[in-house]
Amino acid sequence: MLFERVAIVGVGLIGGSLALAARRAGLIGEVIGVGRGAANLQDAIDLGIADRVTSDPTAIGPVDLVVLAVPVRSTPAVARSLAPGLAPGTVVTDVGSVKEWVVAQTQAELPDHSPFVGAHPIAGSERTGARAARVDLFENSTCVITPVDTTPAPAREAVGALWRGVGARVREMPPAEHDRALAWTSHLGHVLSYALSRSVGDAGGDLPSLGGPSLRELTRLAGGSAAMWRDIFLSNDRAVLAAVDGFAAALADLRGAIERGDDAALDALLELGTAARRRIEGAS
Amino acid sequence: MLFERVAIVGVGLIGGSLALAARRAGLIGEVIGVGRGAANLQDAIDLGIADRVTSDPTAIGPVDLVVLAVPVRSTPAVARSLAPGLAPGTVVTDVGSVKEWVVAQTQAELPDHSPFVGAHPIAGSERTGARAARVDLFENSTCVITPVDTTPAPAREAVGALWRGVGARVREMPPAEHDRALAWTSHLGHVLSYALSRSVGDAGGDLPSLGGPSLRELTRLAGGSAAMWRDIFLSNDRAVLAAVDGFAAALADLRGAIERGDDAALDALLELGTAARRRIEGAS
Repeated sequence: MLFERVAIVGVGLIGGSLALAARRAGLIGEVIGVGRGAANLQDAIDLGIADRVTSDPTAIGPVDLVVLAVPVRSTPAVARSLAPGLAPGTVVTDVGSVKEWVVAQTQAELPDHSPFVGAHPIAGSERTGARAARVDLFENSTCVITPVDTTPAPAREAVGALWRGVGARVREMPPAEHDRALAWTSHLGHVLSYALSRSVGDAGGDLPSLGGPSLRELTRLAGGSAAMWRDIFLSNDRAVLAAVDGFAAALADLRGAIERGDDAALDALLELGTAARRRIEGAS
Repeated sequence: MLFERVAIVGVGLIGGSLALAARRAGLIGEVIGVGRGAANLQDAIDLGIADRVTSDPTAIGPVDLVVLAVPVRSTPAVARSLAPGLAPGTVVTDVGSVKEWVVAQTQAELPDHSPFVGAHPIAGSERTGARAARVDLFENSTCVITPVDTTPAPAREAVGALWRGVGARVREMPPAEHDRALAWTSHLGHVLSYALSRSVGDAGGDLPSLGGPSLRELTRLAGGSAAMWRDIFLSNDRAVLAAVDGFAAALADLRGAIERGDDAALDALLELGTAARRRIEGAS
């Protein structure tokens, strides 16, 4: 067993799935679920995610691990509210999609005796809440861990072992490198899905009824939590803007070839896309 | 039975699936497969798509229906090569994703005694060739039929009955209306998928390995046939450019809110996307 007592703050898709998977693997013992929605906390009990629940982060008592699974920009404030009650040696980690801002801000809120280990499991869906949790969510996924110079090795290793134990491949990289990569591979795609959904919606009332499978697929991500994604875009703004601009340049190239009726240029651009798609498919 | 003898020109995913489904439903009799690739034609025989095959469009003999299932901009030229051999009353139809240009150009190549009925089954995948054909491809799909003033009612009704018979909902609309709608609901999404694939590919060699399910999903369409999509973009250029510009405006709005760090504006834009996504999901 890695952690005898664990508090999961934010018992949603990710926090709930982690608890289910880590319990099944025998990696954690008692689980205290912390959250604000009474119905969702009851779901967490009913689904076997948590042994007890509370809406008061200061009431969790001594634990070995705290998992902060709340919207990115709420993470430091939640850490601040927990800090006075943290026993020496309690490891604190998170699951957020942005790391540089979160790691710096959250670490600053914690006492020196509570190490913070930034983590980001690359998994999920547009569904939210404890009822969306799945015991197999992290199987064959990647979890990025972003230690910094001050991160103690034992804490980093224990968090890595937890994620490996629930089926993830663990990669370590600096927070800024993670954020640049995820801006391209995840955050950009969410921006595009929201923009596509809105523009199709604005273009006409009956259009959605002519959407085939591709439109459903490309707009799926816009069905997620707007509050969660607002936090991600705003706390990783520089990397997200750079990715949006890179995408917009590629879009402008395609637009220009279509407008000019330039068969050869369009063929070449589409082939670049197909070749890149092949690498994405092969790598993942 | 609707058509005793049918020629399918282009025995790929769509032509092959139509033959399989229409044969199973007893709607068509003998099928002659026409194409250029000898291996693919042999697949068509082996898979029960065609009774006989030829690479020579002028050698099909008398048939009741010709289905042109070739890249959009090849459709009129193929119609021209078939025209001298068409018996009076032979119905000609297509399956292309662009209708205004195709209907006008193809009709002009056919003799007066061979009515053309434009059709577009909204179904498919990024896979190509006879081996990708599926007998259930059109179940619960929509097929748009785009008759014009000169389209004889019996031909239009027979083509509609064929598509209903393989499981599609049939909708009729003018070619230009179809093209505007599909530019938004399908062509735009393909442009975006190609642009996203290329820009992620350009951004760095190792990035694809950090792509989660969302990146795979959003880039899937760029794995399709570049030649097919080049034809669609260039023969529906005005509507595609308008859709790209509408999308780009929605993207610029999101980009601006992120750059300004404007929580309220970003929330409002994301909620517009989520609401539109809900309509797309509900309608399809």
